[in-house]
Amino acid sequence: MTRFAMTLEYDGRPFMGLQRQKHGPSVQQAVEEAVEATIGLPVTLYAAGRTDAGVHAEAMRVHVDVERDFDAFRLMEAVNAHLRPAPIAVSQCNAVDEEWHARFSCIGRRYRYDIINRRAPLTWQKGLAWRVAVELDAEAMHEAAEYLVGQHDFTTFRSAHCQAQSPVKTLDRIDVVRQSERISVHVAARSFLHHQVRSMVGCLSLVGRGQWSADDLQAALEAKDRQALGLNAPPDGLYFVEAVYP
Amino acid sequence: MTRFAMTLEYDGRPFMGLQRQKHGPSVQQAVEEAVEATIGLPVTLYAAGRTDAGVHAEAMRVHVDVERDFDAFRLMEAVNAHLRPAPIAVSQCNAVDEEWHARFSCIGRRYRYDIINRRAPLTWQKGLAWRVAVELDAEAMHEAAEYLVGQHDFTTFRSAHCQAQSPVKTLDRIDVVRQSERISVHVAARSFLHHQVRSMVGCLSLVGRGQWSADDLQAALEAKDRQALGLNAPPDGLYFVEAVYP
Repeated sequence: MTRFAMTLEYDGRPFMGLQRQKHGPSVQQAVEEAVEATIGLPVTLYAAGRTDAGVHAEAMRVHVDVERDFDAFRLMEAVNAHLRPAPIAVSQCNAVDEEWHARFSCIGRRYRYDIINRRAPLTWQKGLAWRVAVELDAEAMHEAAEYLVGQHDFTTFRSAHCQAQSPVKTLDRIDVVRQSERISVHVAARSFLHHQVRSMVGCLSLVGRGQWSADDLQAALEAKDRQALGLNAPPDGLYFVEAVYP
Repeated sequence: MTRFAMTLEYDGRPFMGLQRQKHGPSVQQAVEEAVEATIGLPVTLYAAGRTDAGVHAEAMRVHVDVERDFDAFRLMEAVNAHLRPAPIAVSQCNAVDEEWHARFSCIGRRYRYDIINRRAPLTWQKGLAWRVAVELDAEAMHEAAEYLVGQHDFTTFRSAHCQAQSPVKTLDRIDVVRQSERISVHVAARSFLHHQVRSMVGCLSLVGRGQWSADDLQAALEAKDRQALGLNAPPDGLYFVEAVYP
């Protein structure tokens, strides 16, 4: 048996999410089927993170166990060929130690959320960013966001479907950066609650449009109540960008 | 009569090009129909450049003459609404002098060509960049490209369908810039021949992969012969990025 670690880039638009779903296509199903078509044996994919329907990945780390000898480069090339025309690409593939686990060995996750802040509708970025037509103050968003850094009970920013045992998480970093019409929110933590990034970005957008003050954001956090959530941002702008391992 | 100048962003993938075509959808037809649906009168669109099928625009300048009073902002909003779901957006709209002509007043055009230089297939960039799997030397491409700057007979880099009176053009600038896996070729000139940018980029890619030397590129230019063309790059990576006016 060889454990292969892979890095996946994918466009989340056509998928119900990373995890296999009964009711529609998933990244997991597509990749498992492509590996099975290559090696002729069933496999199970494990991933560093679980992205929702419509959420993208620049570099999701996953692994599969293959019960026969296979060259890593040949596996990557064949899986990419079988994945066509699904918008999923394997950008890296290498054999790893059996102790290494894409999900359980992962000690840090980074996401980016892209807002396009303009009046005009989106063209090629449609589904790949969240368009906000009202002018946003990115500096105010960045300043308010710093209240979220550190260890907090993030219940306010947690989906009702979240399966985490505890709502307490430690946010290592959140930076809001504007580059002309694009505002990117960069976040890093060991792990996140379900919908946490989208919920934080949604509330920060209220700060950006002047509807909320930084104090309102802090009050929402301290309420520890989903009812205090101002807005959940759509999946369109969310990218899983890095999984960190020791 | 009011002449309205507009700036268009569009995704060229679903279109046969900017200009109206008998055999398929065009940007011109989509925008003319959206303006007509707004003002109730037929219009003709004039554009700074003519992009081919599958070529994109970040900021194409166009104009239409409207035979009734209309507010520029309302026109932009209504046209954007009527354009939906076509991937075309009006990002600017303003009334201009009748002397101003989107095509004839334009004194400079800038394009960008995006290459994604990697082994992995494209996901969300599919049709929005040219993937080149073989490692390219962007510095060698940039150095060779400098031979193309200035006034030359660009017959080698001209499509058989080109309608320009003369094959002599002056290339003001060509820069090849790598940012990790993305290689962008920035070009500027008063005007270009049909397929000139794609033909220059195609030949530069041969330099990048070591198949051509800078001297080979120069020899191709000096041959003034379409047969000397090494490769025409696909439309996918080409963006019209700026029209310059006095």
